[in-house]
Amino acid sequence: MAVGLSALPDMYPVRGVRLGTAAAGIRKQDRRDLVVIECAPGTVAAAVFTQNRFCAAPVTIAKKHLAAGAPRALLVNTGFANAGTGVPGEQDALRCVQALAQRLQVPADRILPFSTGVIGERLPVERLIAGLPAAVEALDEAGWAEAAYGIMTTDTLPKGSSRRFMLGGSSVTVSGISKGAGMICPNMATLLAFVATDAAVSKEALNACIGAAVRQTFNRISVDGDTSTNDSCVLLASGRAGNPLIDRAAGEDYAVLLANITAVFSELAQAIVRDAEGATKFITIDVSQGGNEADCLEVAQTIAHSPLVKTAFFASDPNWGRILAAVGRARILRLDVDSVNIYLDDVQIVKQGARAPDYTEDRGQAVMAQAEIHLRVELGAGQAATRLWTCDLSHDYVRINAEYRS
Amino acid sequence: MAVGLSALPDMYPVRGVRLGTAAAGIRKQDRRDLVVIECAPGTVAAAVFTQNRFCAAPVTIAKKHLAAGAPRALLVNTGFANAGTGVPGEQDALRCVQALAQRLQVPADRILPFSTGVIGERLPVERLIAGLPAAVEALDEAGWAEAAYGIMTTDTLPKGSSRRFMLGGSSVTVSGISKGAGMICPNMATLLAFVATDAAVSKEALNACIGAAVRQTFNRISVDGDTSTNDSCVLLASGRAGNPLIDRAAGEDYAVLLANITAVFSELAQAIVRDAEGATKFITIDVSQGGNEADCLEVAQTIAHSPLVKTAFFASDPNWGRILAAVGRARILRLDVDSVNIYLDDVQIVKQGARAPDYTEDRGQAVMAQAEIHLRVELGAGQAATRLWTCDLSHDYVRINAEYRS
Repeated sequence: MAVGLSALPDMYPVRGVRLGTAAAGIRKQDRRDLVVIECAPGTVAAAVFTQNRFCAAPVTIAKKHLAAGAPRALLVNTGFANAGTGVPGEQDALRCVQALAQRLQVPADRILPFSTGVIGERLPVERLIAGLPAAVEALDEAGWAEAAYGIMTTDTLPKGSSRRFMLGGSSVTVSGISKGAGMICPNMATLLAFVATDAAVSKEALNACIGAAVRQTFNRISVDGDTSTNDSCVLLASGRAGNPLIDRAAGEDYAVLLANITAVFSELAQAIVRDAEGATKFITIDVSQGGNEADCLEVAQTIAHSPLVKTAFFASDPNWGRILAAVGRARILRLDVDSVNIYLDDVQIVKQGARAPDYTEDRGQAVMAQAEIHLRVELGAGQAATRLWTCDLSHDYVRINAEYRS
Repeated sequence: MAVGLSALPDMYPVRGVRLGTAAAGIRKQDRRDLVVIECAPGTVAAAVFTQNRFCAAPVTIAKKHLAAGAPRALLVNTGFANAGTGVPGEQDALRCVQALAQRLQVPADRILPFSTGVIGERLPVERLIAGLPAAVEALDEAGWAEAAYGIMTTDTLPKGSSRRFMLGGSSVTVSGISKGAGMICPNMATLLAFVATDAAVSKEALNACIGAAVRQTFNRISVDGDTSTNDSCVLLASGRAGNPLIDRAAGEDYAVLLANITAVFSELAQAIVRDAEGATKFITIDVSQGGNEADCLEVAQTIAHSPLVKTAFFASDPNWGRILAAVGRARILRLDVDSVNIYLDDVQIVKQGARAPDYTEDRGQAVMAQAEIHLRVELGAGQAATRLWTCDLSHDYVRINAEYRS
């Protein structure tokens, strides 16, 4: 039931980055569940990870390896998240990494592991390792679409975004894939997102780029308010495009690159919400006129996480009192309720804290019946603003999450 | 589908407090929807109200009137919450209050109004006023049970609690009623709770008593994390029991009174969770060994509000990774994940941050299949602790809230 999400776009290859996918039977048979992303020597990498304190074993190891040097490959499995598995879980992840390192003839600490799936159960290391030859065999610069399928769990559609643009006289590509579905309220990056470019960028500039892009994209989506233990977003830059090296987070070339990477991140992040578990509505929440951005975000998240607001969206019910109540309970220091305006698309439902005089249920109903809804909240307190994307709470969300694992 | 909640207990009359209920057709026909609670001259009152900034018109007026002097009556309606209605909403509430004041021959500012129901629509003042004679006619010290029915909205069962005990040589009664169902995450008091005692208590001691009791009861329940615009909890003390006046928040008599009032509040608060919208499970969350109580509460609430944890409870699925992930994302300053232990009843599922060695799915499953579940989290950081009551998230929660109003 993905909302406004269609087939994968054309995924442009990124020079220096090859992807291979296999069906290793990690948790289910005959399902692509193993992805290797190999990058050429000289590739620069930046990544952001979950801020959940119970971060998964692969996250711990990926952080350590990323600090050790530029990665040469990413190893991704679905089925099991390898989280809540303690020291044995880290050993499992390391064994997988070592097996891939041997096959690719690179040091083990140049490989970053990523896992997604059920929390708390051990990784079937032998099955995963047995799947590696097929994944490595399949490595190909044209492997993006296969990989997009290979990282799916409860996603109903693969998610990808790809762009080409000119940078310093050279044609540059940015391609990326992501997966999401549930336990989505990233506090750093979403479940799994892998984006690569062939632009030449320094590590410092790439770090700035991923930070700025994530803040406006992956950190601005919410399905259910639950931050995963495995959230990871990786940005690779192979440097093969021939553009003049971007060595700092400033200047026109950096701005062009950031804009394009943000665009890819934004599409991938929105795709996760459009294909969220049980989603029937895609909702853009804009909170503006806040005293600061943190207040705007808190208000937006309080609305986005409210089960009552989410079920009203599901029911196409313009029960705007629930939105107003969510704004009123947001944990911000000051709120002048008499200054608050709320709009559903262009229909003003709340004016200065109370029902707008010319509001009618029919007009609200017409907007709520749409698959895509734009909710705007003006706080009347300042100039700050933020945007968040979320979805509704449907019968299917409960069904999917009550049945998951069974 | 109320969990472990049966018929109303015997509701002991409270000397000096009379209750009258009527069916005024405020939103639906032939349904008790109007309650008047009259208290004798000399009654002392204390109350706590929602901290939602969009508090309802009746809350604004009740606060004002409570500050003006000791109330002589409470006027309660269901059907419409009279919230988000601006200045006209306050005028509506005042007209109702004035009509009752005239009939009871008391000043209007001695009456506190309370409303619950749909947010954002105007109160049908004429129908409400037309129902007043019947409610006043019915006033009776034995009217508690009728009133418990009269304040219900999506509640499936009426909620009441009543106790008798000796205080300073006198027999004292505490009786109370409440209603809840949805939009329950009180941040001061729950939707509506009215408790009365015939004990002789000063206003200062009564205020201390309601504060202490609410903090451990109504402020420790959550159905969906949504704080209502209308939460109100009122504690009346008619002083007719003949006990020596309790004039300060100390001493043995105060302790006995507080213990009994807390017990009544606790039963009423738990009853709200047991009869929450769609609830099939009643879950007690104890978080202990915290650095301070605020941390414990934040962890408990993060678990209680997680849709993934709530759907796992609904499914009787010991998917404890979701609990662990919720603990890990709680907004507390410090969390040493390697010190965390988690138990389902007596089954340890997480030991020092990872799956407990002797845990088996069968043992977890056996606990999760129960209608009442005790979840314990030890943070290993200090001596603080708190307890919270919550419920699961079921198909019926979505159905009820998607269909409400229709």
